[in-house]
Amino acid sequence: MSEKKLKVVIVGGVACGPKTASRIKRLLPDAEVTIIEKGELLSYAGCGLPFYLSGEVHDYKELMCTPAGVVRDTHFFKMVKDVTVLNQTLVESIDRNKKAIKAVNTLSGKAIDIEYDKLVLTVGGTPFIPPIKGIDLKGVNFLSTIDDARKIHDEEKNLKGKNAVIIGGGLIGIEVCESFVKQGMNVTIIEKLDRVLPALLDPEMAYHVHNELQANNVTVLLNDAVVEIKGDDQGNVKSVKTNKTEVPSDLVLIAIGTKPNITLAKQAGITIGTTGAIAVNEFLCTSDPDIYAGGDCVENIHLVSGKPIYAPMGSTANKHGRVIANNICGKESMFKGVLGTAICKVFTMNVARTGLSEQQARDEGYDFITVLNPSPDKAHFYPDAKLIIIKLIVDKKSRTLLGAQIVGPGDVAKRIEVVITSITNGAMIDNIANYDLAYAPPFSPAMDNIIHAANIAQNKLDGIGKSISPVEVKKKMDNNEDFILLDVRSPQEYEEIRIDDTRVKLIPLGKLRESLHQLDKSKEIITFCKISLRGYEAQRILAGAGFRNVKFLDGGIVCWPYKKLVK
Amino acid sequence: MSEKKLKVVIVGGVACGPKTASRIKRLLPDAEVTIIEKGELLSYAGCGLPFYLSGEVHDYKELMCTPAGVVRDTHFFKMVKDVTVLNQTLVESIDRNKKAIKAVNTLSGKAIDIEYDKLVLTVGGTPFIPPIKGIDLKGVNFLSTIDDARKIHDEEKNLKGKNAVIIGGGLIGIEVCESFVKQGMNVTIIEKLDRVLPALLDPEMAYHVHNELQANNVTVLLNDAVVEIKGDDQGNVKSVKTNKTEVPSDLVLIAIGTKPNITLAKQAGITIGTTGAIAVNEFLCTSDPDIYAGGDCVENIHLVSGKPIYAPMGSTANKHGRVIANNICGKESMFKGVLGTAICKVFTMNVARTGLSEQQARDEGYDFITVLNPSPDKAHFYPDAKLIIIKLIVDKKSRTLLGAQIVGPGDVAKRIEVVITSITNGAMIDNIANYDLAYAPPFSPAMDNIIHAANIAQNKLDGIGKSISPVEVKKKMDNNEDFILLDVRSPQEYEEIRIDDTRVKLIPLGKLRESLHQLDKSKEIITFCKISLRGYEAQRILAGAGFRNVKFLDGGIVCWPYKKLVK
Repeated sequence: MSEKKLKVVIVGGVACGPKTASRIKRLLPDAEVTIIEKGELLSYAGCGLPFYLSGEVHDYKELMCTPAGVVRDTHFFKMVKDVTVLNQTLVESIDRNKKAIKAVNTLSGKAIDIEYDKLVLTVGGTPFIPPIKGIDLKGVNFLSTIDDARKIHDEEKNLKGKNAVIIGGGLIGIEVCESFVKQGMNVTIIEKLDRVLPALLDPEMAYHVHNELQANNVTVLLNDAVVEIKGDDQGNVKSVKTNKTEVPSDLVLIAIGTKPNITLAKQAGITIGTTGAIAVNEFLCTSDPDIYAGGDCVENIHLVSGKPIYAPMGSTANKHGRVIANNICGKESMFKGVLGTAICKVFTMNVARTGLSEQQARDEGYDFITVLNPSPDKAHFYPDAKLIIIKLIVDKKSRTLLGAQIVGPGDVAKRIEVVITSITNGAMIDNIANYDLAYAPPFSPAMDNIIHAANIAQNKLDGIGKSISPVEVKKKMDNNEDFILLDVRSPQEYEEIRIDDTRVKLIPLGKLRESLHQLDKSKEIITFCKISLRGYEAQRILAGAGFRNVKFLDGGIVCWPYKKLVK
Repeated sequence: MSEKKLKVVIVGGVACGPKTASRIKRLLPDAEVTIIEKGELLSYAGCGLPFYLSGEVHDYKELMCTPAGVVRDTHFFKMVKDVTVLNQTLVESIDRNKKAIKAVNTLSGKAIDIEYDKLVLTVGGTPFIPPIKGIDLKGVNFLSTIDDARKIHDEEKNLKGKNAVIIGGGLIGIEVCESFVKQGMNVTIIEKLDRVLPALLDPEMAYHVHNELQANNVTVLLNDAVVEIKGDDQGNVKSVKTNKTEVPSDLVLIAIGTKPNITLAKQAGITIGTTGAIAVNEFLCTSDPDIYAGGDCVENIHLVSGKPIYAPMGSTANKHGRVIANNICGKESMFKGVLGTAICKVFTMNVARTGLSEQQARDEGYDFITVLNPSPDKAHFYPDAKLIIIKLIVDKKSRTLLGAQIVGPGDVAKRIEVVITSITNGAMIDNIANYDLAYAPPFSPAMDNIIHAANIAQNKLDGIGKSISPVEVKKKMDNNEDFILLDVRSPQEYEEIRIDDTRVKLIPLGKLRESLHQLDKSKEIITFCKISLRGYEAQRILAGAGFRNVKFLDGGIVCWPYKKLVK
């Protein structure tokens, strides 16, 4: 008699599920693997949906293809992977004692019972639905599945010159925004907190994204909440009413977040974590040793805070699939956690973040410093050089990175990867400062932006660089405090753009050493230039000359998120 | 009586010297710092010279500017940094007992004696001059200083349609090549080894650079050495004679490498290292505790092999300056070494490398595996996605990276930085595979190329993926060995491009499971597809079906560096 074949049932066929199935078949060719998917389509790139809406991806089928252009349908899975796919099939319950699931085909109504040796839950997430009136009106959309995207896509075509309202200024809202603008719509984003991308960026970084949205004629309403979506007598959406205003609307996208699909797991008595998602251990096993879970339905450990977070990402889902398959096939494998990394394109601006934000670091009780480093992403003489602004959050005690945010038209992605790799490996800032990063003028400055940022961090940690954040300076201004804002740029630069405040005094850096008598030693002096490289130099010159109360303004005038006087 | 001021003399004013001087003044404002530079110009970006030649940088002065556009001349150093610069001044000797140097102004002939408390040698490197006839002819150039570049730049203008010969297929030769082509010249590169960039790339990676050069009408002569440069009766260069041929030439660039300037140090009895450059310890101190050295005149420790290497780089020189300044000012600071990182742009192709090459790993006695991963740099459905090919060299014992090479039109720089950061921190491949890298379709595939490459490495280390390199397959072909080259792509792909060999058999992956009877189990089978993702899948299917001698071809047809049949 032949050995019994391992039976694996996977519930969910979008990202983590198919990855798990394929890997199991490569490791254990004899295993009987079944994927059950409630929708018609499977194994598609959900993260590509905004680019289908923008027209950059022409056919939604491209989102379902292998890199070689083959559509991953049920036939593909059978022929290539020897995996059985039951699509349009809804799993209704798990019997953990019998190790079996009950499902139903949503087309035929036929009931299906399948036994498993190992069960894998990759059931994904669902958009949050706000409890407001009008949510069912025609023209109100979510963006979670290919079907959602196709529905919006069809509407979009007829909406040139009309009004779109995006409820939620988070990642999906911001990503879709550009596609609506490209279709010629007037777009309004409504965000209930005080800034866009509030879960990802600190205020002074979100400010640059806000500016980019406004520069592309997007209206951004902050600190405002939707109370009702209004319709006409045909049941079509007509406007969105908020606490403060009412915005006419022909199309509404609700993008206030995703919640994990946990009903099935909860009913079966599987442990749900503190974030509200399915709890799994390092092996991605649930509280039932025969049931694994991965992708958008589980929570992960944050690698910096050590606490659970819910951070659904397609990239994480794929990694989960591999780890689950390994463990099911007896090849012990761990997934230790995530950093809450995110990246997006906002018109001509790139935005990335990882680890803890300043606010999160404060909430976690860290004693930290922050760095703002705006500089060109390539050698400054290279014609294609573009600005990027790096914010680092650095733990004082361990001198390691807690998190970073990077925005700008330049190459943001490269620098966030260096931060991610450094945090994951616990690298000290002093180690980062000496990385042998790849330098040539078309790719980076001789001192890469990250190395420069690490040097600023070292200077601050060592008490050599003393600085103050734009947020704190603004507070001082608003409190009418008496201090000198010492602008050390050239008169030409000053003419072009400057901070509009009576406390500003201009002394170009080259004249500072001979002009010390013009400055009152008893006053607080805050030095700055374009990016605060010369501002830092000025701080050191003044410190060297015996001035006791001198700081430089973090990030200089480039990072000043408040009113500036422009020629 | 006031405390004696620290006197620091720095010999060399290009990169490391000015950085050292500026940092010392920021840390110890009272220090007396003097830079002595033999040339007229200082503090310029030597690495920018090829881009000045190509016209991308319009004015050589841009290479000497701060990011804010101020030229760093002697006046700038005095006014802004309070650093004295003696340019056009040659240091002739060091008296280590007296702690003084003897110098001479090369314009006036005036002798100068200066005492120091600490001396810093940042005297740079000089191009190798080959011992061949004709090296002094008009039109024969080196590219080391701004003066060199201006000389070539002036010649270039009149050379449209004429012939340029670059002697040396290394980094500088390759970088300058594009600028000559842009000026309308016919360019020939002569390299004495068997491939371009021989010190940086393994043969199968150099092959792609070679192709890119040829596609841009550059003639590449390999395995050939120059024996003489011939001139006309006016003393102008006329042709370059090699062992094999003679190439007509109106302009010659000699770019066969850089050697460290060690005469001054050697005369003073300072220890010279095994590479021929000045030896320094982790604090960048020479054998004399009062003499530091950095930049292109010193050797560094290779962070993987632990051995000294000579790897002159502008980025390293800048880091050296900061470390030297810290140590001189009593702030202990270490520079542990480099990875031999390099990056360059070759027309539309980007090329990067770090750590050990396969050849170097073999020479160092490592037991390692290699990975070839060709894939799109962004989500494959994203319209702007471009190919990159990653080669990893992974130590079997520690499962850490020894080195990497990445080439292709796509975003190579981002991935090499992840490798560099990983090697520096000793990250295991299993850790790399789970990095929470920044994913969105405009920036990367859901499984980033580096993560995918790490997964391939895991499969190989764990004996799941069995592969063979294109170099080895070619050897088997040349030895007329009997094996099956199993192409598992679609018939359409096969029609478009294929390996031209009678051993090739086409069975599309989707038909493989039902076609096993067509394959001889006793034969060696080498599976492949476009990039060997399906090739690997096929290897696993065959292994699962009991085939014992199956491997997939590393990197598939995309990485096959030999003849292909194109429709």
